[in-house]
This record gives sequence, C-alpha cells and structure tokens, in this order.
Amino acid sequence: MSEALLNTSFLTEDFLLQNEFAKILYHDYAKNLPIIDYHCHLPQRDIARNRQFENVSQIWLAGDHYKWRAMRTLGINEKYITGNASDKDKFEKWAYTVPYTVRNPLYHWTHLELQRYFGINQLLNPDSASAIYNVCTEKLNTPEYSTRALLKKMNVQVVCTTDDPADSLEDHLQLKQENFETKILPTFRPDKAYAVENPAAYLTYLGQLSSVANVEINRYADLLKALEKRIEFFVSVGCKLADHGLEQLYHFTANAFDIEALFKKVKKLEALSADEIRFFKYKTLLELCRLYHKQGWTQQFHLGALRNTNERMLRELGPDTGFDSIGDFSQGVALSRFLNELDSTNQLAKTILYNLNPADNEVMGTMIGNFNDGSSKGKIQFGSAWWFLDQKDGMEKQINALSNLGLLSCFIGMLTDSRSFLSYPRHEYFRRILCNLIGRDVENGELPKDEKWLGKIVSDICHYNAKEYFKF
Amino acid sequence: MSEALLNTSFLTEDFLLQNEFAKILYHDYAKNLPIIDYHCHLPQRDIARNRQFENVSQIWLAGDHYKWRAMRTLGINEKYITGNASDKDKFEKWAYTVPYTVRNPLYHWTHLELQRYFGINQLLNPDSASAIYNVCTEKLNTPEYSTRALLKKMNVQVVCTTDDPADSLEDHLQLKQENFETKILPTFRPDKAYAVENPAAYLTYLGQLSSVANVEINRYADLLKALEKRIEFFVSVGCKLADHGLEQLYHFTANAFDIEALFKKVKKLEALSADEIRFFKYKTLLELCRLYHKQGWTQQFHLGALRNTNERMLRELGPDTGFDSIGDFSQGVALSRFLNELDSTNQLAKTILYNLNPADNEVMGTMIGNFNDGSSKGKIQFGSAWWFLDQKDGMEKQINALSNLGLLSCFIGMLTDSRSFLSYPRHEYFRRILCNLIGRDVENGELPKDEKWLGKIVSDICHYNAKEYFKF
Amino acid sequence: MSEALLNTSFLTEDFLLQNEFAKILYHDYAKNLPIIDYHCHLPQRDIARNRQFENVSQIWLAGDHYKWRAMRTLGINEKYITGNASDKDKFEKWAYTVPYTVRNPLYHWTHLELQRYFGINQLLNPDSASAIYNVCTEKLNTPEYSTRALLKKMNVQVVCTTDDPADSLEDHLQLKQENFETKILPTFRPDKAYAVENPAAYLTYLGQLSSVANVEINRYADLLKALEKRIEFFVSVGCKLADHGLEQLYHFTANAFDIEALFKKVKKLEALSADEIRFFKYKTLLELCRLYHKQGWTQQFHLGALRNTNERMLRELGPDTGFDSIGDFSQGVALSRFLNELDSTNQLAKTILYNLNPADNEVMGTMIGNFNDGSSKGKIQFGSAWWFLDQKDGMEKQINALSNLGLLSCFIGMLTDSRSFLSYPRHEYFRRILCNLIGRDVENGELPKDEKWLGKIVSDICHYNAKEYFKF
Repeated sequence: MSEALLNTSFLTEDFLLQNEFAKILYHDYAKNLPIIDYHCHLPQRDIARNRQFENVSQIWLAGDHYKWRAMRTLGINEKYITGNASDKDKFEKWAYTVPYTVRNPLYHWTHLELQRYFGINQLLNPDSASAIYNVCTEKLNTPEYSTRALLKKMNVQVVCTTDDPADSLEDHLQLKQENFETKILPTFRPDKAYAVENPAAYLTYLGQLSSVANVEINRYADLLKALEKRIEFFVSVGCKLADHGLEQLYHFTANAFDIEALFKKVKKLEALSADEIRFFKYKTLLELCRLYHKQGWTQQFHLGALRNTNERMLRELGPDTGFDSIGDFSQGVALSRFLNELDSTNQLAKTILYNLNPADNEVMGTMIGNFNDGSSKGKIQFGSAWWFLDQKDGMEKQINALSNLGLLSCFIGMLTDSRSFLSYPRHEYFRRILCNLIGRDVENGELPKDEKWLGKIVSDICHYNAKEYFKF
Repeated sequence: MSEALLNTSFLTEDFLLQNEFAKILYHDYAKNLPIIDYHCHLPQRDIARNRQFENVSQIWLAGDHYKWRAMRTLGINEKYITGNASDKDKFEKWAYTVPYTVRNPLYHWTHLELQRYFGINQLLNPDSASAIYNVCTEKLNTPEYSTRALLKKMNVQVVCTTDDPADSLEDHLQLKQENFETKILPTFRPDKAYAVENPAAYLTYLGQLSSVANVEINRYADLLKALEKRIEFFVSVGCKLADHGLEQLYHFTANAFDIEALFKKVKKLEALSADEIRFFKYKTLLELCRLYHKQGWTQQFHLGALRNTNERMLRELGPDTGFDSIGDFSQGVALSRFLNELDSTNQLAKTILYNLNPADNEVMGTMIGNFNDGSSKGKIQFGSAWWFLDQKDGMEKQINALSNLGLLSCFIGMLTDSRSFLSYPRHEYFRRILCNLIGRDVENGELPKDEKWLGKIVSDICHYNAKEYFKF
Repeated sequence: MSEALLNTSFLTEDFLLQNEFAKILYHDYAKNLPIIDYHCHLPQRDIARNRQFENVSQIWLAGDHYKWRAMRTLGINEKYITGNASDKDKFEKWAYTVPYTVRNPLYHWTHLELQRYFGINQLLNPDSASAIYNVCTEKLNTPEYSTRALLKKMNVQVVCTTDDPADSLEDHLQLKQENFETKILPTFRPDKAYAVENPAAYLTYLGQLSSVANVEINRYADLLKALEKRIEFFVSVGCKLADHGLEQLYHFTANAFDIEALFKKVKKLEALSADEIRFFKYKTLLELCRLYHKQGWTQQFHLGALRNTNERMLRELGPDTGFDSIGDFSQGVALSRFLNELDSTNQLAKTILYNLNPADNEVMGTMIGNFNDGSSKGKIQFGSAWWFLDQKDGMEKQINALSNLGLLSCFIGMLTDSRSFLSYPRHEYFRRILCNLIGRDVENGELPKDEKWLGKIVSDICHYNAKEYFKF
C-alpha cells in the first residue's frame, strides 16, 4: 500500500463525510470544538509527571487490549504481545497485523492516530514499520509529545479519570494546584466497595478504605459512612461523576436480607450465596446513588460486560487484558425498578446508561424517557456506543436508536473510555459519523436544509450539551 | 427555518421515495388506496358525537404521550405538558420543542399532519407557533374538521377501536345504526379479565363484567361464561378481532394449578404468588383464544412492553402517560408452546404477533412460519412495527425481517395504534417506506423491473391483503 | 415477467455488485476459487450411487423445507407440498409461489439455481412453469446432471456431510476407495448420544451404538468408550469436524450430579429432571470435546434453534420439515464457561460458533476473541450466517459484526448447510455480498484502494483460510 493511495482516497479531510451537507456540518460546526472527555481511564500519574514515552510501543501497544486481541486472533505468540520481546519486535508484529485489521475500527484508529499526532500519511505495514517506529519514537522524545502537550494538541478541555474510593487522588491534587489548563478531574468508581463475592479480597479492600477515610469499619453502617467521607473528599477535588461496571442491575424488596448480618458473614470470611451477593450490591449501590444525588453528581452505569472469561489468561495476565466480551444479560425490569426506587423519593441523580450489547439499544433508548421528568434537559442519557461498539456501525446504531426513541438533540455525546493518550481522534471519528448521518438525512429530504439549526444541534452534541450538563 | 426550505427539499411529494421505481410504486399503486385501520385506540365516543375540537392543542397535544416524553426530555415543566397551563401556552411549548425533535418520528409526523390535514407547509417552531395555532384552530371549528369529516378526508374505510369486555359498546351501536360510511368496529381487549395481580381491583372489575353480561360470577367457570357472552355480544356489533397487551406469553402443563382454587383465593382478596398469577393469565387467555377461534376472529398479541415504570408519575397521571418502555422479556419458547397448544386441537385462530423489542424481530419473523399450515394466505402474521418502532428504521427492520424470513407478499400491513384523529398520515408514511425499499431493490438489480407484479404486491400489502384477511 | 426483463436488469453478471471495486474483487479474485463446503447435509448415498434425479421436483422440492414454509404461508394445501400430488403438480404450485417470494432469499436462490445449473434465464412463474419443468427434467436425465457431475460443475473441492456416530459410513468408504475427485468426508454429529430426554428412544440408540462400536454399554464410562471408538473410526475415514445442534450450552460444577447414577436411571427408563438432562448433555459434550481436541478436529456449535414447535405436524411429517424457528435463548455466560473449562486444561479444539438469532451476533463476535490465544490464525471462528440468516441481510450483519469486533481477514467463510445438490450458488451469493461490502468501503474512502491486498483478503475468506484451517 503506497503513500499516494492513502493520500488520494483514504482518510482524506472528508473522511466519512459522504455528502455535501455533512462536510459543511463537520468543517464549520464540529471540527474545532474543544473536547470534554467526561469518562476515560487515562493514568493521571502520567499527566501529573508529564511523562514522556520512550518509544511508540510504550505509548501505543503497552496497554491496549484491543490491539492484543487482534494480534492473538491472527495467531501471534503472546511473547510479542504482553511478553518479553523487545518494544521494536512488538511493533513489527503490530505492523504485520494492521493490514489484517481492515474493516475493524483498529484500522481507522491506527491511521488516524498516525496522521493526527505524528503527521504520518503512510499506511502501517511490515514495509513501513521501521521508518514509522523511528519517526514516532523521535517525536515522542520531544517536549511537544509529553502527555500534557498531547492533550493540548488535541484541544482537550476536560478529562475525567476513573478512580477508586480508596485512592488518595494525590495526582489530581497536584494537577489542581498547578492549574494545568486541561482540567483533570477524578471519577468515583466504587466497584470494589461491593465486590463481596471474594470475602478475603474484600476485607483487604475494607482495610484500605478504612485507613484512607479514617473511619473504623465494623458494621455495614460504617462502610456507608466511610464511603460518604470519600465522596465528600472527591467533591473537594472537583469530582462530578460516579461510574459503575455491572453485568446488570438488581432489584429487591427493602428487607429481603438483613444487610448487617450479611456484612458480619463477610467479615467472618464466610461465602455469601448468589442472591446475598446480589442484594449486597443492590443495597450498597442504592445508598451510594442517594449520596450522588445529594452532591448533584452524575451517575454512570456501564451494563452488560461479560468479564474475565478466560481463567488461564486471567491468572497469567490479570484483568483488562483482552478476555472480556459482550454478554446477553437481562436488563430491563431490574434497571427500571432500580431507577424508580431512587426516583420515588426524588433521589435520582442525573444518569448515563451505557449498554455493551447493541441488542439492548432500544431498551436503553426508551428507558431514559421513563425518568426524564422535565426537571432538566436530557437528565437521563443513553450513553455513547461503548467499548466494542465504539466503531462506525456501533455509533450509528446508538445515534439512530437515540434519535428514533428519544431526542438526539439533548445528547451529551462522545467520550474516549480509553487508557491511551493517542485516542483523542475518536472524538473526531464520532463527530464525522454524526455529521454524516444528519447530512444524509438532509440530502435525502428527510430533514430541511437548515444549516444554522442543524449546525447548532451538532455543536450542542459535540460540546455544549456536555458543558451545560456537567458544569465542570 | 423558512417556508421556502420546506417546500424545496423537505416533505415534497416524493418524500422518502429515493429512487424512480419507488415513485412509480407509491404514486400509481399505493397512494390512493383506502385505509383499513384494523387496530387503533381512537375514542369511539368522539366519533359517535362527531366531536369538533376546540383548538389544535385539544386534538393534537391533549392525549399524545409521544409528544409529552419529548417535552419532558427537553426539560419542560409538567405544567405545560399535562398540567394547568393554557392550551395556547402548551402549544407554544410544543412549538419550542419541535425543532429539537429532528431525526425523531415526531418531526416527520408533526409536519406531515400539518400539511395533510391543514395545508400548512411551514415548519413549526416558536416563530411560526402563533400563526399555526390560529389557522389550525379556526379550521378545527368548521364542519370539515369534525371527527367524522377527518376520517373521510383521510379515506379511512374501517376503524377498529379497542374495547373492554365490560364496555356497553353503545357508541358502536349508535354508529352502526346511523350507517356512518367509515365502518367503526369494536375490538375485544380482555386484559382486565385476567389482571389478578390486584385482587381488589379485579373484584371490582368482575362486578362490572357480571352486571353487563348478566351472569353471576361465583366460580371461574362463571367468568368464562360471562366472557363468552360478551364475545357473542361483540360479534353482534361487528367485532372481528381480539387484542392483548402482554409482557410475554406463559405456558404451563394443564393441571399445574387448580384454577377454581385460585379463583376462590382471589375472591377472598388473597394475593396469588407470581406463578399462580401467570397460570391464571395463561389459562384464561387459552380459553379465550379457543372462543375467538370458534368465532372466526383474529387474535392479536402485543408483546414485550415494560409498563408503568415510574410509580411517582403513575400515581400523579395514571397509566399511558409516557412512562412505558421497551422490555427484554424472553419470548420464544412459551410463545411457541402456547400457539402449539391451540394448534394441536385445531383451535388456533388467525393471529398477529407484534413485538416491541426489535431484537425479537427474527424470533417473530420465523415463529409465524411454524403455524402457517396452508389453511389460508398469511394466517399467522408478524405485525407491523409497533409503538416506539413506528418510525422509518423500525418499519424498515420489520419489513426486512419479514421479507427475509417469511413472505412479505402476504403481509396485511399498517395500522395506526393511535389515540389521535390526526395520525392517519402514518399509513402514508408506511406506504412510502415500503415502496422505497422495493424500488431500491429494483434499482439495485435485486428484483426484476416488473411494475405490474410489484405494484400488485404493494397494493396487496397496503389494502387488499387486510381486506381479504379480515373480511369486515 | 418476461425473459427480457430478467436479462437486462436482474441477476446480471454483476448481480449484487453495486460498485466498481466490488466487481473487480469478485470477478478477478473470488469467482473462480474452488468451493470447500465444510458443513452440509447432502445425502452421501446419492453421491455414492451417483444418483440421477427423475425430475426437477425430486431434486428441488422433495427435501426443501424452506420452500415448504413459503408455500404453506401462501395458503397452499399440504397435498402439494409433502403430500401425494404428482411431481408435476407440486412443481406448478411452487411456480405459482415463486413470484410471491420477492425479497425472500428463495427468490434469488431459485433464479440463480435455474441459471447456473440449467442455463435458464427466465423467471419462474405459472406461465413459464411447464417449459421450465420439461427443460430441467430432460437435462437431469443426462449424465451431466448426475450428483457427481453437479458437484464438479460447481467446482466443489470438498464436501463434509453430517453423520451420526452410529452410522456405518459405508458410502464414505466407497467414495474414498473410488477416489472421487471431490473429497466427500464425514462429520461427527453426536446429538443423539446425549438425547436422554426420551429414555426409550435413547436406549434404542445405545443399542445401535453398542453394536456398531462393538462395545457393551452398561455404564456411562462405556458410552464414552464407544464414542471414542467411533471417533477413531471417523478419523480413519477422513473426518476432521464435529458438529452439534444445541439450544444453548450449559455449565455445571463438576460434581453437580453423579453421572453414573443418571445413566442408571435412564437405563431403567426413568425420566430425568430438566437439570439432570442438562447436566448429562453438558458432561457428555465436555468429554467429547476433549476427544475432538485430541484428534485435532474442529468442533462446531449451532446454537439457538427452537425446534419442533408444531407437534401436530411433527407427528404427521417428522422433524426437519419446516416447523423450526429462531429462539431467544440465553447464550453468553454458559458458553464462555464451557469454552473456558476446555481451555483451562488446554483441551479447547478449534471451534466454530454459529448463532441462529442475529441479536446474538455481537455476543458471538466478541466471544471468539476470548479464546483466540495466538496459537493459530483464527482458531475460534464466528460461523457464517446460518439457516434463516443465510440471506443478504443476515450475511451482511454477520460479516459486519465479525469485521467490527474481530478480524474479518481470518474468517473461513461460507458453507451451504444444505440438503440439496442445487444449493452451491449460495457460495457465489456469499462471495458477491462480501466483495460488495469491501468494495463499498473502498468507494466510500473507508479503505484504501489497494486491489492486491483486498483481493488477497477476499480470496483468503473465499477459499484459502478454510484450506489452511482444516487441512483436508
């Protein structure tokens, strides 16, 4: 694949913009808006230290399980993925893999990232690998490629990281003090606070939480007290969001189990039954959600991932290494009851629902309407296409489902959900896809050719709705 | 948005017809066919009285929970939705909302309805609101805009309303006597006849049923007798259809519970268990379906709605006010067993299956084939895209699933399912979408360019199949 | 419908190829590749005897439940479908039906098969029926239309049939001995080996298995011994694949039940509970999968069919007569645990997952990535669109899901899954659809215009990946 081909047909400035109106919307209304990345997994320490990456493998391959899965599928040995091969050799294997990723989002992401960050217009493949490795690595060692410089280069205004209640947030505190121009804010992600399926690990966690919160945790009520103290601390550091990773929500009658008794069992390292575990999660999440509402936070639920499916690899590599997938859990009833319980006492915070299985798009797209009560614009949100769905088809399906079942105009739009400093072109990707869909409707005569109004809708979705929604 | 824009690009006479063959199919074969609206929720009393609506808010906003959901999502206070604001103020809020509904079916419906009923080619927005309110309201106060005139204007041949077994059908009787040229027929919808989850409300209902059927209901067998008498009465008024709203169908072995014993418990206001409730519904529905078969009726099952999710709003506003959504209930096994049980004694009536979750489209599209036994054309139908799915994407998915998995040519087509006298352009909407899909296949070389045959298929789906199927 | 119409617009040489790049890919890279049909239901006896079919109804209608369902839906009496009407009359009814199948894959298949096998360019309808019947029947009585000649005509290199462990494989042995140039290989399909839901039928089956394996089956361990002997025998005849039809996979803890005790109950004709039946299936399948791994076989799981829904027709016509449909069984958790259990002891064979409900596409498309461990290219496969989904929409959805969630480039592509010697144009159908999608991406600027590389990807999917994967 030659450079010429890339320049003349693929990844041009009108990439994904397949009609004239879409080009106007993107270039005149969407392209230049700052990025509000209200949910990601960027390592805040790297920002605090303003890390420089040694080479392109370090910044691009070292933490990216999307790439790892692709390489494993192609039959590449783990040595070159997470193993002890050299960074250069790993890059060569990745370069060998890239041409095999055609039609996968990795193919677009890869070349967008090379182009946007490094000005490289070549396709990555075994022939171009060495040159690209060297050019990128050289650039990465200049101040223009420090983590902070990369965020500025991409016009990122806000970054919300993902943090455990027991985290000290010291990096956030440092960044706050330094007044770094991109706001780096924590997000409260308390998954471990109800992970009672493993009592031993849970007790260790309680120890950490107790220590950082300075609350002795003997009873369940103490746990809630400790969590509330942490929430208050997170607030003091600028936190505005909570986030939760759940297969599905649960719902129980209030006294289905005695929560203090369950807590005692866990403290004695006794295993809970499946239903007791679910009740514990349900109860704790409910109490947390009431605290979020009190603080005016937004709560996020990431629903439907089937995690850690491969125990052998989990033992070898740990979680989040590419062995999770899309589940087909039942969502509707318990989710509606959970939200209803919060709503019934007027304690339902602003909420974003993300589903991993696109078969649930229509459940989510209509669920939000059940609790949008006129109190604020787009109070309950159907979150942008998540994880595996963060690609053209997935985004189009989410945007179309939201459009058909709710109000697209109230959508707070894209987030990266990424661990990588090179992922910001995904906002560009989303914006192009959004403009293309709206432009296509106009060209088809399904929407009036009203550039000003549709331009406003586009810029709201790409920036202003999130700005107004979160008020960072 | 100016009037000019609307006229030149949006909502033209070729709206949604994106290829030449589609235009021929629509304009020459579909457009002028009379409407058989075999399922809707129009208030028969308004037809019997030939009601004139006071103003456009009364006919357009007062009962439309689609619009209410959109307004709530945008952050509009309930006062302007179902509250005590003036009709004019409510209209202003709706006009403010409309431009934010781009890509939602409300945007198309709104402008189609303004154009088709009122001859208004302007876009509705805050600037045009006042003039449009006045023009519509003035027209609504002329005889050409009485309910009966509106039905005639839209070329509606048959309307099947939705009626409880305990209804007196007095309005239908009056209309029958008056020989109103649009046939207004009742549909038997016995949801309350098995709503034993609330024994107190159920007993009240039994009282009404007993009284209107003139049958003392002491035992379960009496309930069936009363229902059979009501079915016979409905037949005498011209009823040809039954309808049921269900999360999912159930199936049990015949003697899983003692139905008379369950009935006794309910009579004593004792709560039934979840499984007892399901058995009661199952058993009663089964007996009803046998009665429908005896009468040569068609039975409809609307499957998969998750209703009354928001208890606070249910208390304040009652049901059907915009707090229902799409569920993800399991459908396949019990549905097939239920239909099989009726089929095994040759008591399976003509049946229409409507699913609310499009993830079930393929289950429904193939389920119908299991019980199409050659006894009549399209005996078991996969019903048109329903409720939330009544939009371009939803209709296309239903039409495509039916095409790929069954015979589109046997489809009995569109119905409004609406509570509004202004909803008839949805038939036009459906017809345009249908013609566009078939035309596209022709232009793509996926179907032969046989205008006569494809025109026949289109006109069958838009009118003649339903005519032959129901024989009203 | 005239011949001219057919020739000028429908089913041209560029059928389904809607852009220029697609035409290049199809005609220059895909069209001429030999077919590896690694899963079908062709009757091996017909190949061994090199059967000539008496007339076109015998080869085309006699075993095709797709056509039967369509005819029943149109209201055609069973007499003309599976009944005692003459072959000519049955053909007339089918010809009457064909024009009503527009937009169903039957419409395309029918005309592709007439054109590719018989050189007939006319549309089949009542007018053309008699002539087409005669032309086809005449040709079928020439040596060029024997079963073996038909396979050669279609460039079929390998055919894998579907065989029970108790089969003698005598036809395969004969074909092997004769060195017929198309490799005809058996596939091990042991569904009956764990069909303990019907103890009486199961014992009969055990008797057959015992006899052919020459193993007395008194205990469960004996059953496994007999199955292992049959696997070894299948290996000796060239078998490389196993296949299983399952509603869903199950997972249990190892000692949830005592398998020998369950076996004893079955031997005494005692009914097992639902959970006992599931455990028996789980346990037996697990042991079989370990044996497949030992042999280096590929295992196939066909998941999600809801079978034999219509008991009346099952009694009259038996299974596989058109009364099966798509189910909505839960798939994710148990499937992942089952595969994990095999993987955890490094006994997970190459695996192909086929789902019948397209709502599960994304579950399958990501599940394969959990167990692709770098040991070989595309070890775990998301199988091609199956049964009801074997049509343009279904194939496009599977190809797109696989592309977005995995590596399309590693896909082993199409199989017929058919019982008919006239089904091979479905490979052509698949290839055209594949080329059209990739070509469209190129024309849209979503892929570089690299003919050589994309041509390689296409030819890999159409032939070389399967060749390398199975090494027949």
